[in-house]
Amino acid sequence: MTKISEIGGEQALIRQINKKIKTNPDEVILGIGDDAAITRPPKSGKNLVLTTDMLVENNHFSLSTYTPEQIGKKSAVANISDMAAITATPKHMLISIAIPKDTTVEFIDSLYDGIQKETQKHNINIIGGDITGSPSGALIINITLIGETDKEIRRSGAKPGDCLIVTGDIGRSGAGLHLLQHNPKISKKSEQILKKAHTEPQHRLKESQTLKKLNCITSMNDISDGLATETKEICDASNTGAIIYKQKIPTSPATDELLKAIKKDTKETALYGGEDFELLFTAKQQDTKKIIDTLKKQTGTIATIIGKITEEKQIYLIDKNKKTQLKKTGYDHFKQNPYDYKK
Amino acid sequence: MTKISEIGGEQALIRQINKKIKTNPDEVILGIGDDAAITRPPKSGKNLVLTTDMLVENNHFSLSTYTPEQIGKKSAVANISDMAAITATPKHMLISIAIPKDTTVEFIDSLYDGIQKETQKHNINIIGGDITGSPSGALIINITLIGETDKEIRRSGAKPGDCLIVTGDIGRSGAGLHLLQHNPKISKKSEQILKKAHTEPQHRLKESQTLKKLNCITSMNDISDGLATETKEICDASNTGAIIYKQKIPTSPATDELLKAIKKDTKETALYGGEDFELLFTAKQQDTKKIIDTLKKQTGTIATIIGKITEEKQIYLIDKNKKTQLKKTGYDHFKQNPYDYKK
Repeated sequence: MTKISEIGGEQALIRQINKKIKTNPDEVILGIGDDAAITRPPKSGKNLVLTTDMLVENNHFSLSTYTPEQIGKKSAVANISDMAAITATPKHMLISIAIPKDTTVEFIDSLYDGIQKETQKHNINIIGGDITGSPSGALIINITLIGETDKEIRRSGAKPGDCLIVTGDIGRSGAGLHLLQHNPKISKKSEQILKKAHTEPQHRLKESQTLKKLNCITSMNDISDGLATETKEICDASNTGAIIYKQKIPTSPATDELLKAIKKDTKETALYGGEDFELLFTAKQQDTKKIIDTLKKQTGTIATIIGKITEEKQIYLIDKNKKTQLKKTGYDHFKQNPYDYKK
Repeated sequence: MTKISEIGGEQALIRQINKKIKTNPDEVILGIGDDAAITRPPKSGKNLVLTTDMLVENNHFSLSTYTPEQIGKKSAVANISDMAAITATPKHMLISIAIPKDTTVEFIDSLYDGIQKETQKHNINIIGGDITGSPSGALIINITLIGETDKEIRRSGAKPGDCLIVTGDIGRSGAGLHLLQHNPKISKKSEQILKKAHTEPQHRLKESQTLKKLNCITSMNDISDGLATETKEICDASNTGAIIYKQKIPTSPATDELLKAIKKDTKETALYGGEDFELLFTAKQQDTKKIIDTLKKQTGTIATIIGKITEEKQIYLIDKNKKTQLKKTGYDHFKQNPYDYKK
């Protein structure tokens, strides 16, 4: 294992990282190595899309439960998921990283490998960034993604009567986190599924592009802060309310098994968990069959209707015959810290 | 003083910040409040310019020596300086911030005020960002700037025989840091100048735009990591070497006074300090008079020839008649920590 100071510090580390990075010369005019990067503008008729996400040690990941490659992958996925949420195509990436003093060169190398596995899959150019020290000892990664779009789907287009739909299943990342923290006894297979769901989440970029082409999605969000919060964000932006049918929230058998083992309500966990990176979207009732069938056929991903948009500006949860008002928030970094258990 | 959790956490804080932010509707299609921001692409014929910088507590600033407004301002200035270095026009900004638990709403408010004072001056739109908690207790700010350019000046265009020129004076930020740390006795006036130079550095965006129009600058860098490092970066990118005349390095009377008081070599400090955010650039000998005169006339800023570019790929320092090879680096975050004195 090699310390960063042993290879010659900041500049040497940047040179080593650069060697691994290849960019598309048709798109990138000036990549890593100057004060700024220069790229071609979006193609005629397209607008620029920009998103940024900061991942903080012991908040978004922990060194005891993530490999460096998984940290890199998750940083990329969280940002690509934001691009998916707005149906844009990611093109370029900037990576800032604050590195604790005793971090090894091998650690940083693996972290960049994790990022690059995602960027290469989607032809995203890594065009620059910033590397600095972190005196507090916490590893911090900030990724900015630059993309383009001709016609985006926003949060704000939901209309009363629209169906509320999610891709995949919900709550598995939260279940995986619980498992990593408390290690309750469940089957080996479910354990593997849930741990992987938390440490190696997937984005839904391909699904987002399929949905966009259908031309009938009225609003969309990705589920990074929990189903409850994301539903509220769509409703707030669209000036509507919603009803969620609790029993319709899709959860996986592995999630069900864990939540049963710890005697908690699976659907409740799904509502208030986070980082599933599934898509939450709305569409008219008559379009839902086409949407669900096309998604399944083109991407293999199952979508589920979980509720509907209402005119009344409240969000209700319907559990069998009981109607209750939804607790307002999902995940909030200032109220909870998922890794507090470590202290 | 109000805690962030008292106003309702992350979402409430974002709503409060949003209220202060105005963007230009001709440029910004979708600002803060969705998963990503959408802007118009650069005007026809212009390319996209991107830069990102991470500022870390006790590395780039300390809460004992900076006000929150100064931290915000410095974060913006460091990024604008990178745009100046490549002669681009900054257009949009993304701000990520990791906030320690007990930070007050008023603190964050002032920090954004500091950023906004800079963005408003240069018509930069704040279009989005990320707010998260910082379990390690360190405040982290990452800013990404998106700009445009038709014809940039890179680091790589210096030619043997070109003159090496700097704007302003060098070393005052480093002198200010020393003053804040060790408090040696100097005149009140010099103390004020140097402290301000460190906590409220200025970028040279206007000077950069003036230089670009002259159409004769062969290479450029901003001095963020020290004159020695930045000279080396120009030489490495241009495949040249350089000679620096030590006595020609411009330093201010306040810097001279401090360095004399602590019995250190002013010019040496200037070479290896950092964060002066002056411009370092090269041009043919015959163009230097026009450059220096125009800069003085149009911006009030003095530029000084400090050396020349050579074919031999070494950087030499000439001090009176003594020629020595320049130590290779200026500031390195993995070798030094300017705020280590605090521990």
